[in-house]
Parts: sequence; C-alpha cells; structure tokens
Amino acid sequence: MKLAVIGVGLIGGSIGMAARRRLGAEVAGYDRAAETLEAALANGAIDRAAESVADACSGAEAVFCAAPVGVLPGITREALEEAAEDAVVTDVGSTKREIVAAIGDEPRFVGGHPLAGAETAGVENARPDLFEGARWYLTPTGATGGLLYDRLQRILAEIGARPQAIDASEHDRAMATTSHLPHVIANVLAREVEQTLGEGGERLPEVGPSLRDATRVAGANPAIWEDIFLANRAAVADAAAAASASLSQAADILRSGSAEEVAAWHGAAGQARSRLLAAESAGGPVTELRVIVPNRPGIVAELALALGRGGVNIEDMALHPSADMSSGAVSLWIAGAEGAERAAALVRDLGHTVQVLDAAG
Amino acid sequence: MKLAVIGVGLIGGSIGMAARRRLGAEVAGYDRAAETLEAALANGAIDRAAESVADACSGAEAVFCAAPVGVLPGITREALEEAAEDAVVTDVGSTKREIVAAIGDEPRFVGGHPLAGAETAGVENARPDLFEGARWYLTPTGATGGLLYDRLQRILAEIGARPQAIDASEHDRAMATTSHLPHVIANVLAREVEQTLGEGGERLPEVGPSLRDATRVAGANPAIWEDIFLANRAAVADAAAAASASLSQAADILRSGSAEEVAAWHGAAGQARSRLLAAESAGGPVTELRVIVPNRPGIVAELALALGRGGVNIEDMALHPSADMSSGAVSLWIAGAEGAERAAALVRDLGHTVQVLDAAG
Repeated sequence: MKLAVIGVGLIGGSIGMAARRRLGAEVAGYDRAAETLEAALANGAIDRAAESVADACSGAEAVFCAAPVGVLPGITREALEEAAEDAVVTDVGSTKREIVAAIGDEPRFVGGHPLAGAETAGVENARPDLFEGARWYLTPTGATGGLLYDRLQRILAEIGARPQAIDASEHDRAMATTSHLPHVIANVLAREVEQTLGEGGERLPEVGPSLRDATRVAGANPAIWEDIFLANRAAVADAAAAASASLSQAADILRSGSAEEVAAWHGAAGQARSRLLAAESAGGPVTELRVIVPNRPGIVAELALALGRGGVNIEDMALHPSADMSSGAVSLWIAGAEGAERAAALVRDLGHTVQVLDAAG
Repeated sequence: MKLAVIGVGLIGGSIGMAARRRLGAEVAGYDRAAETLEAALANGAIDRAAESVADACSGAEAVFCAAPVGVLPGITREALEEAAEDAVVTDVGSTKREIVAAIGDEPRFVGGHPLAGAETAGVENARPDLFEGARWYLTPTGATGGLLYDRLQRILAEIGARPQAIDASEHDRAMATTSHLPHVIANVLAREVEQTLGEGGERLPEVGPSLRDATRVAGANPAIWEDIFLANRAAVADAAAAASASLSQAADILRSGSAEEVAAWHGAAGQARSRLLAAESAGGPVTELRVIVPNRPGIVAELALALGRGGVNIEDMALHPSADMSSGAVSLWIAGAEGAERAAALVRDLGHTVQVLDAAG
C-alpha cells in the first residue's frame, strides 16, 4: 500500500512510522520545510521525500494532510486535485466544521481528528505508537464514498487507533467545551488576576496551586491555538458565552448567601468532575491521595518508585509546595479503590502521612 | 510566654508546635473534639489540654482562634470575653471582612490569615515548620492596640512567617480572585462539560490534560469551601461576575474571527501568566520542559532522581498520558534559565527528548 503524508510534523511523522511498520506501507512525505523532510527520512517516518504535493500524492491510495489548521483547507484542496480518482484524502485538524464546509461534496474526502500528540510538536518526537488506543474522529458526509471511508477506517485501526464517526458540527461543539473552553477560561483568569492585583495598592504575589492549575495553559502555543480558536470560532464562542452565563448564575448563588444553595451547587460540581474522570479511567473511579512530604529533590522519585514497585500506576499528579519549598504535599490520583488502598499503604510504609480524599468531595 | 490555641487542627496544631519549639512558649489548647486534643498532646502540638475556651485563655498573652471559618466569629467573641485585658486575640480564617465586622472596635483583636496548609487538614499533619517563609496577612483596624499588634507580629516572625498588614476588604477582594475564583470556575466548567456531553447523542469521554487541570478543584473539600464561599460571598460574587463579563468579551473576540484580535488576546494572557509565575518564584522566571517518556511506573522517579542528583528543584509538574497509558509527556516547571538548561541536559542524558517551552508563549 502506498500512502502520502502532507506535512511531516509530530502527527504526520507518526502516521508514516506506524504505517510503515504495521502496514508495510510505502510512505511518501512532503513538507514545505526541507530540513523537516530530511529529519523525517532520517528517523524513518517516511520512505521518500517528495518534491511537491503532486509528487507525494502520485500513486497514493490514501493521503493524510497533517498541516496546521489554518492552512489545512488549502493543502487539502490541492491534495484532492493531485490525488488519484480512487484515493481517499483525509486531514488531522482539531476542528472539522470549517474544512468539511470548505471541501464540500467530495466523495474522496473524510475529515479526521486523532486525539493524540497535542502535548508536543515536531517530527523529532514522532513515534510509531502515538495512536495506540487513541480515539480518532472521522466526519463522513452524505457525499463520502463508502469504500474509501472503509479503507481509511481500516488503516487507522491497523495503526492502533480507535476510529469513530461523528458529525462535524457535533465534533466541534464537543471539542469547544471539553478542549478549547479550558484554554479560553485559563486566558481570561490569568488576566483577571493580574488586573485585580494591579488595581489594588497591595500586592498578593503568592500563586496557589488552584490558580496555577487553572491558568496552566494560558497563552499556550500561540501558533497552534490561535488557529484552533479561529477555525472553531462559532462553537468556542458559544461555549464561552454559555460558561459566562453559568458563571453569572454562580455569582448570584454566592451573593444570595444561602448555605443550602451554595452546598448544592458545590456538591453537583464535585459529582460532575468525578463522573468525567471515572468515564475516562479504565480502572474505575479515580481517588486522590494527599501525601505530606519534605520537598527535597528526590522525594517524588521515592514515591513514584515505591508505587512502581508495587505495580500501581499514577493517573495524575500535582505538587503543592509550601512557601519556603522545604516541604509540602503531593496529590496522586490512582484508579480503582484497590489501587488507591495499595498506594496509600505503600506510601505509609515510607513513613509519610496520607489522606485519602473522596473523589466526589 | 503563654499561648492559647482554640481549635487544634492542622493550623492550630502547627502554631502550637512552632511556638513551643521556637519561642519556648507554654501552649494551652482547646478543641471540641476530645480525641483531637489527645492527639495534639501526644504529638507535641500543645503542653496542656484545656477544658474550655476560658480555661485555655487563662493567663495567655496571645490567643489563636483556628476553627473553621463558619464558627470563627462566635469562637473569637468567646475568646475575647475570656482573655485577659492585655492579651492579643487573633484568628486564622481565610476570609477577613466578615469577622472583622463581627468583632467591631476591639483593641485586642487582630484578624489574621496564614497562606499555608490549605492542602491538608488534621492535627496529625501539624508540623513546626508549616509557616516557614509563608505570608501571614494581618488586618488591624483603627481600634487595634499598637503594642498588641506588635506582639502578634513578633510571634509570627519568630515562628517563621512573613507577617504583612492589609485592609480586610482589600484582602478578601484579592483572595476572591486569586484563590476563590479558580474554585468557582472549576465548578462551573465541570458542569458545563457534563451538560454539553449529556445533551449530544455522541459521547466524548476523553478528558484531556487541560480539562483535568482546569477542573481539578471542582467540588473540593465541601466542609471548607462552602464556608469560604459564604464568608467571602460579596467579593467572590464580584470576582465571578467580572470573570463572566471577561468571558463574554472573549466570546465576542472569538466570534469576530479577527486573527489580529485573537492573537492579541491570547498573547496578553500568556504574558499575564508568565508575570504571575515569575513574581512567585524565588529563582526567577519559570520555564516549562516537556519530556516524552514511556508511561511505565517508575519513569517519574527516574526523572525526579536525575534532577535531584543534579540539584535542580521541580516547581510544578503535570503528566500528559497518552490514550493507552503506554507513553506520554511530562511537563516540569523549573525556576531560572540556568536551572532549566541544566534540567534539560540531565533529562537528555537519560535518553529522553525534551522541548523547552518559552514561558511567555
């Protein structure tokens, strides 16, 4: 099987590696940056460095367009012009409504979006198992050819992904809330805090762990996120407006001073988060352990080693250092009641005190 | 010197321990829970288990009220009735306007709020160095006696804290934004996500790292947070309303589709977060390193050990597991350009690829 990858970054490079190893595919790659193409050849992401989109598409049965969201419609259109009549062309952009509308009724095109690799970039980080177990959304339309859709789905399953069809608008709406809205909120919060501190004569520079968590992605990766915000602007704006309304309602509940209403509101939020994490984890509900530790270098290592030896995996972790960094607490999220119990016992054996927090509260 | 601690939990117990060790103080403790008092005696948090607030206050030169925010005004009033005419009485509640108003013009009272220990609870976690380097806000009023204020400030400095006077309303407004608002937003976001996913026929259960970070404290510790929300309701409601307005503006900017406006908005948020982190860290601006690692148990240990051996401290950490948990990325935040460089080199020596991310973008 011959594949083409247009744009050989982390995602494109990993597609190439996986297809070569698992499908025995012959992969032609094209990238505007010559040094990227060279690196992709060097680390085995592609078999052949193509000289143009047309050259890459020549003879390919499937074409993956893996460029940044902002330039994807143009590149995908070019690929469709150059690809064979019986080739399937797909993209990997994290928003789908815009590109599906831009391409229109085209039997050979299927929009796609793998939920993998957002945390890094660059072909030097490509790896053949990037998509192992990863959800890969596909957005077929009424015009999509059935055989071509089937071919694409099989390729994705072969490289380890879990393809799932979804309406492009539904996809964008869900991603707007679960993925893009947290970034919008982090941006808003970072500036709110700075403005509030700037206004008062007093300075409160201490940034607590909750503020750190809540603003971690503020202003993240402008090249990627500006494109995503623009491509999915309608759904993200809707999600932000809905969150704004909920926040305004929360302000009213708080201002009411009703202990009952505040408790109901707070409790419902805890349950909602609990259900979200439980739905994600294969090991069942996730429990938080809080461990009091000296903050010396190496302490996280000790904890992680002890849990590792005990066969307990850490789903999530957060450090809460004390003001002088001499000590603090580490939160460890562990899946399954049994795993959490075992983890707590292992940590206690190290001589640390542990609090096991109910995920719902 | 004789001290009284009313409410011997994490904070009260740590005050007792620190005062006994560093000031050679004789500490009397009172708590409604008999077993808490016993535990406090057993681990050296207090010298003497008092039978009542009056008993604890008898002869004390300084009285620390360290009960939950909801019952603090009552307990503090009782302590003021029982304490000597020349005793200073203070509290450790995380909101200040309500209690300062409740106590009124009272020369012996100074409101207080140590920024320490929020991450755990219970006298069993008390430690004498809990306040080492920690900011400790004090809210004197025009009625506060100068000598008593000075005595309190000296005690706090002796136990390692950094006391700072602040107007009670200003304190609550700043805490509302930097500490309480992130909790309100996490609550709102957790429910928004659940509602959006519930509405659509499709399910997108994958919870990405940005959503996990942004909702980490949703519904956290109801006993503590419901009290805080109620005690600081006016300022928190104002902060939530302001954030709601900013979020609504963000929705407008996104909907406009102007690449320039979106870029300016996103860039300003990155700079705001950068400045907040830099203001906090003693080591200068904080840099994020992204490390690609296999997700086997023990990998975090390897990283932390290597950095520990190299003398590099980790300010903050986040794990970004891949879908199948077989691999992923770890973000490490390191203070100072030199520290970040050394850390990157140490991680590369382990054979991992590292991205050094500009804090501002």
